[in-house]
Amino acid sequence: MKFTRTSIWSAFGFVAATTISTTTNVNAFAPIPANIAINRQNSGTTSTAFTPRSIININTSSNKRMASASPTSLNSYTIGIVGATGAVGKEIRNCLEDRGVIKVDKLRFFGSTRSAGKTVSTKSGDVEIELFDVDAARECDIVFLAVDGDFSLAHAKAISEGDDGAVVIDNSSAFRYEPDIPLVVPEINGECTKNSKLIANPNCTTAIGLMALWPLIKAFGVKKVLMSTYQASSGAGQPGMDELTEGTKKYLEGDMKSHDGIDNEIFAYPLPFNVIPQIDKFMENGYTKEEMKVTWESRKICDLGDDVPISCSAVRIPTIRAHSEVIVLETEKKVDIELARKVLEEAPGVVVKDDPETLTYPMPMTATGSYDVEVGRIRKSLAFGDYGIEFFVCGDQLLRGAALNAVLVAEEMDKNGALA
Amino acid sequence: MKFTRTSIWSAFGFVAATTISTTTNVNAFAPIPANIAINRQNSGTTSTAFTPRSIININTSSNKRMASASPTSLNSYTIGIVGATGAVGKEIRNCLEDRGVIKVDKLRFFGSTRSAGKTVSTKSGDVEIELFDVDAARECDIVFLAVDGDFSLAHAKAISEGDDGAVVIDNSSAFRYEPDIPLVVPEINGECTKNSKLIANPNCTTAIGLMALWPLIKAFGVKKVLMSTYQASSGAGQPGMDELTEGTKKYLEGDMKSHDGIDNEIFAYPLPFNVIPQIDKFMENGYTKEEMKVTWESRKICDLGDDVPISCSAVRIPTIRAHSEVIVLETEKKVDIELARKVLEEAPGVVVKDDPETLTYPMPMTATGSYDVEVGRIRKSLAFGDYGIEFFVCGDQLLRGAALNAVLVAEEMDKNGALA
Repeated sequence: MKFTRTSIWSAFGFVAATTISTTTNVNAFAPIPANIAINRQNSGTTSTAFTPRSIININTSSNKRMASASPTSLNSYTIGIVGATGAVGKEIRNCLEDRGVIKVDKLRFFGSTRSAGKTVSTKSGDVEIELFDVDAARECDIVFLAVDGDFSLAHAKAISEGDDGAVVIDNSSAFRYEPDIPLVVPEINGECTKNSKLIANPNCTTAIGLMALWPLIKAFGVKKVLMSTYQASSGAGQPGMDELTEGTKKYLEGDMKSHDGIDNEIFAYPLPFNVIPQIDKFMENGYTKEEMKVTWESRKICDLGDDVPISCSAVRIPTIRAHSEVIVLETEKKVDIELARKVLEEAPGVVVKDDPETLTYPMPMTATGSYDVEVGRIRKSLAFGDYGIEFFVCGDQLLRGAALNAVLVAEEMDKNGALA
Repeated sequence: MKFTRTSIWSAFGFVAATTISTTTNVNAFAPIPANIAINRQNSGTTSTAFTPRSIININTSSNKRMASASPTSLNSYTIGIVGATGAVGKEIRNCLEDRGVIKVDKLRFFGSTRSAGKTVSTKSGDVEIELFDVDAARECDIVFLAVDGDFSLAHAKAISEGDDGAVVIDNSSAFRYEPDIPLVVPEINGECTKNSKLIANPNCTTAIGLMALWPLIKAFGVKKVLMSTYQASSGAGQPGMDELTEGTKKYLEGDMKSHDGIDNEIFAYPLPFNVIPQIDKFMENGYTKEEMKVTWESRKICDLGDDVPISCSAVRIPTIRAHSEVIVLETEKKVDIELARKVLEEAPGVVVKDDPETLTYPMPMTATGSYDVEVGRIRKSLAFGDYGIEFFVCGDQLLRGAALNAVLVAEEMDKNGALA
């Protein structure tokens, strides 16, 4: 069975909130890496009562969303989203609407049998979710995959291959390490998109960290990078956010003496008021795959070579949808902190929040819903003296860490002719 | 006005929960450093509805508390506690009772005019809080100061000076950096207590981190230490814990779209589902005082010398009372990870929780209420190759980070004759 009826978005003229007419957030296409969903012995259902806000409703001081920008793309496109009702898929829709840079001729949503046939309300009318089908996806100009790696592995190449295939921008880790497939943060290596129809979107932690790291690496060189992360529940999608907020409520309603009775289906342990120093599976070297992703992806995106040591500790903490990172950069050149600050202030997609006098620094509270990655606590490193910088970044995991980056890839490809 | 009536604890025979017959948690002696309480423009009251559990009621797998140990001290002592109803003061009482190592002849609680006259129920009867008075404190053998630095600066030396003064174990930062005053983690430099009547208890983050760092430094030497912290609300005492839990409840009851209306009197910003990359005031070098405490205190306690670089990023996260830390140690000797693990397994006050197969690692959920500091995620560092170890620690901020360490100092002094 295949649904082909879709409504048509002629263009994006103004900003309006999109709402979903179905309450189903979990489907077979939901972006939960299998290796995150470790502990499924509890069979409790995941409520959607605590749905984090859409970026539309957020008022943050650093919010530099270009909400009123006119459509500027060279052409108008048929856009497909697989996993459109998941947390990342929803934000891809929001980013397309809010930014208004990519002119959308037609929008098509694809889902599993579980979501196919349901209707998603958008500002320009209802869009019915079609059952995913490779041929239907190939009819699009651009297809965003906001689903798990197994799905991408199975279908991404089939959607994009040949002259008449669609450009695929994949949010999973399926193709990130294939040498011939570009792994892209547009502000860093957007030019890599020119000659490929399949683009990998990086790991959220990597993308957020590199937004601040890359300008500094360009200015001072890099000998070594150390990172400690403070990762939000949204890394496990909407079910992760729901498990945190529901579990927290239950913990506070109880005697707060233990985590007994606090469900954890998504995370390995209950996350409320806890910290879990494991994200993704363990590797043989004692690091987790999430930590190695930061190493592998940073090297590939910044073209650093395999000899630059990059070490990460990836830690889940009880926050909702913005990741924070402590980053220490050992440099090749002597550090000038004022120059470092200037370089970051001039970097696209970065906002410097760094003023001890006014207690200004990055926080999830302010970074949530913002397109920009916040960077602050910029200082010369006590560990590496004149050749080191330490700083703190915060970025919205669903935006720079996923949806926004993917939409920016599409904008870059429109600009550089790769979509022609 | 001065209250001198106290009840007498003859000895500790068994473990029982102590309860406080007053609901007042905030008083002039509460352990809130003035520079943490930055933002007081909100005048909301701090409720005590969500009182974290006493360690008595906690059941953790790693709990190695010696609850049934018989009194073993050489003598019995009159013990004074200033700030006995604060979060640290309460745990000092609990540690004395639970461990049963120090024989208590008489227990005296001292407070401000606000708490003086109130009665604290203990297993051996009610103890009335006396108005603090230097002469009365001098009548004790050991006085624990669980109050702020200003109080300690004003009174600690007066209590301890002369042959007939009391031994003072001070939890504040007032004397930690005075060359002649020992700063002690008993398992590391307990012998320093022999010739001093005023002992400084270290910063919580430092004490917790050093429990795992010191055995590794002894085994492999140290060239450099980098630390990122995940610090709990208890670092700001009971009011900090209350502000987190009350604020979280309010956030969840609202629309979860912003932190508007979430009070923050104790922390600089609302902590629920947020991260605050600032603890204590900012220094000229861009680090905070909390971060510099880790540098200064680690060097002093481990006698490392001023040339060993130690760099910390201190970050407050929404957890209740256990701190976590990512630590990277650059070593002088080549690292053998199995030896590192063995050294940690044999270290007193440390429990190794490190098994990827069973997803065993340190977490606040398990470290809360435990005397031992949990260490795990032990691995050779990608940043420093054969000459580096990375690991993750979790320790109860109120126990190893404060009360337990202080009580262990008293036990050490009993053993080494410093109390004679």
